[in-house]
Amino acid sequence: MLKQYYLFVLLLLLLSCNNNQTHKESKISQPEYLTSWNDGIAKSNIITYVEDITNPQSEHFISVKDRIAVFDNDGTMWSERPIYFQFYFVIDRLKEMAPQHPEWHVNQPFKSILEDEPNALLKSGHEGIAKVLDATMGGTTEREFQQIVSDWVKTAKHPESGKLYTYYVYKPMLELLDYLRDNNFKIYIVSGGSLEFMRPIICEIYNIPEEQILGTTYKTVYDYNDGEPLLKRLNEMSFYNDKGNKVVNIQNIIGKKPVFCGGNSDGDLAMMQWTSSNKLKSFMLYVHHTDSIREWAYDRESPIGKLDKGLDQAIELGWTVVDMKNDWRTIFEN
Amino acid sequence: MLKQYYLFVLLLLLLSCNNNQTHKESKISQPEYLTSWNDGIAKSNIITYVEDITNPQSEHFISVKDRIAVFDNDGTMWSERPIYFQFYFVIDRLKEMAPQHPEWHVNQPFKSILEDEPNALLKSGHEGIAKVLDATMGGTTEREFQQIVSDWVKTAKHPESGKLYTYYVYKPMLELLDYLRDNNFKIYIVSGGSLEFMRPIICEIYNIPEEQILGTTYKTVYDYNDGEPLLKRLNEMSFYNDKGNKVVNIQNIIGKKPVFCGGNSDGDLAMMQWTSSNKLKSFMLYVHHTDSIREWAYDRESPIGKLDKGLDQAIELGWTVVDMKNDWRTIFEN
Repeated sequence: MLKQYYLFVLLLLLLSCNNNQTHKESKISQPEYLTSWNDGIAKSNIITYVEDITNPQSEHFISVKDRIAVFDNDGTMWSERPIYFQFYFVIDRLKEMAPQHPEWHVNQPFKSILEDEPNALLKSGHEGIAKVLDATMGGTTEREFQQIVSDWVKTAKHPESGKLYTYYVYKPMLELLDYLRDNNFKIYIVSGGSLEFMRPIICEIYNIPEEQILGTTYKTVYDYNDGEPLLKRLNEMSFYNDKGNKVVNIQNIIGKKPVFCGGNSDGDLAMMQWTSSNKLKSFMLYVHHTDSIREWAYDRESPIGKLDKGLDQAIELGWTVVDMKNDWRTIFEN
Repeated sequence: MLKQYYLFVLLLLLLSCNNNQTHKESKISQPEYLTSWNDGIAKSNIITYVEDITNPQSEHFISVKDRIAVFDNDGTMWSERPIYFQFYFVIDRLKEMAPQHPEWHVNQPFKSILEDEPNALLKSGHEGIAKVLDATMGGTTEREFQQIVSDWVKTAKHPESGKLYTYYVYKPMLELLDYLRDNNFKIYIVSGGSLEFMRPIICEIYNIPEEQILGTTYKTVYDYNDGEPLLKRLNEMSFYNDKGNKVVNIQNIIGKKPVFCGGNSDGDLAMMQWTSSNKLKSFMLYVHHTDSIREWAYDRESPIGKLDKGLDQAIELGWTVVDMKNDWRTIFEN
């Protein structure tokens, strides 16, 4: 009797020693993952892939150090309509800075934007957008800029709904990040958005540390400042993290080819292709904006988040295309 | 008797369950760390700092996520004499590429270098060095370049000793990385050396993954290449990771201010100052080349690894200066 008791305790202890391992493995097929996803091809593709490449018995097994996942941000992790949320930030900042810039009341596209026509920014084309971004994203220290962004996101409201911009983070995508993270993926955001605009907003919400955010950068100079060193942001973009440049940044900063890539537009196509060319089994996921009621519906003709060549290639190569309307039970948390 | 036996097994199991924790804590003050370091101020400063900031009872305790350490490479982690080892690579590559470049036999500094005067590279100044780097660091795909570097480092020999360049890695610094790593520091290399030259050589030796190497980059373009995507390195530097730019890169890529900084020249001074301005308790370590017998002795007047303003500031602000001759029992592994 005593012997059996001790054997039982031994068994319990052995089980608890292996707790992490057992826990991890059993989690994979648990239904609590991806709860905002309807059953369907997209969800089952994801689960099949992750179960395959994490299975040490599978020929597709991928070691933890190579489980690199990259995700676009605008339109992939949160909404981007009617215009990128960073553009609303830029417009708000333009208004705030306008008293110090009388010339903006004369020059376009500044004049129109200040006269409450946010669409004037988009209409001004690449050159106009660059002018406005350069005027508003630089001119402060790094720390000041982080504070400005942090303050803005706590109070600024989406023009259509009056909700905070952070409302527009996609719940199913947060669940996907959790699922991948619990399967030991290292997750990076690789976005055309400005690095220092994203970090104060998304690191906490996505549970991703600063060093795993890759974005567009502005020229920055170091100043010793008599022993209180500063980084000064200049009014000039230094690296536009879009299209092929996303791949360049992945190589320069991550240094490994990803095995999982999530995006929503042609701007993400290069990193999809790059991921798809991995010798390890890879997974390409395109978020297709198909829900005009709960979110917005757009693709081939959209000036923001245009998905045209990417959609063709996804269909041709059998990448997973998420139909937001049908694949997502819930889009936003609340 | 049986009962005692089971109790003994239970005890063993319990101990093995707590193995990691116990192991970690006991390691910190074990003498097996930093064995190539002589007892002295440098070694005791390091240990005192690490024991302080890892002690949860200390007012200086630093949480694991903030234990960021940055190290320069040339002259800090391995030797840099008579000229940077990357320069020898560049010279070897120049010779290999010369048959396709008849113009190099006429134009300087190419002509002199090809006539076996490696010092001609250094003498040609910033402009000449830039020309030679641009000519030799680009022009291939990313993967080809990695292979070229990997092949080179396995066979190329230091001109003075005939030893492999990897011989010149400082054993005491590898021990310091181990010590910091075992105390949950995340270690980055932040070097003026080219990113894609360093990665194939140092990642394995230093036990640091690709994404924790920051260096000088070359313009790179993505090419879909009919479904077999490539990154093509162009013959033009895109970011020179030296001085203030090291701080810019630390902010852009790491996104947190380090608490530990190791360097050896004025090129590292900005990141020393940046680290020193951390509100968390920080540690600045300058490697001072004082051993003309076992390594090289140089500082204020050296064209390579000049340490002048940095030495003044280290003395003024009480940073730790490693006297290689007296502080290091062993410099190289073999």
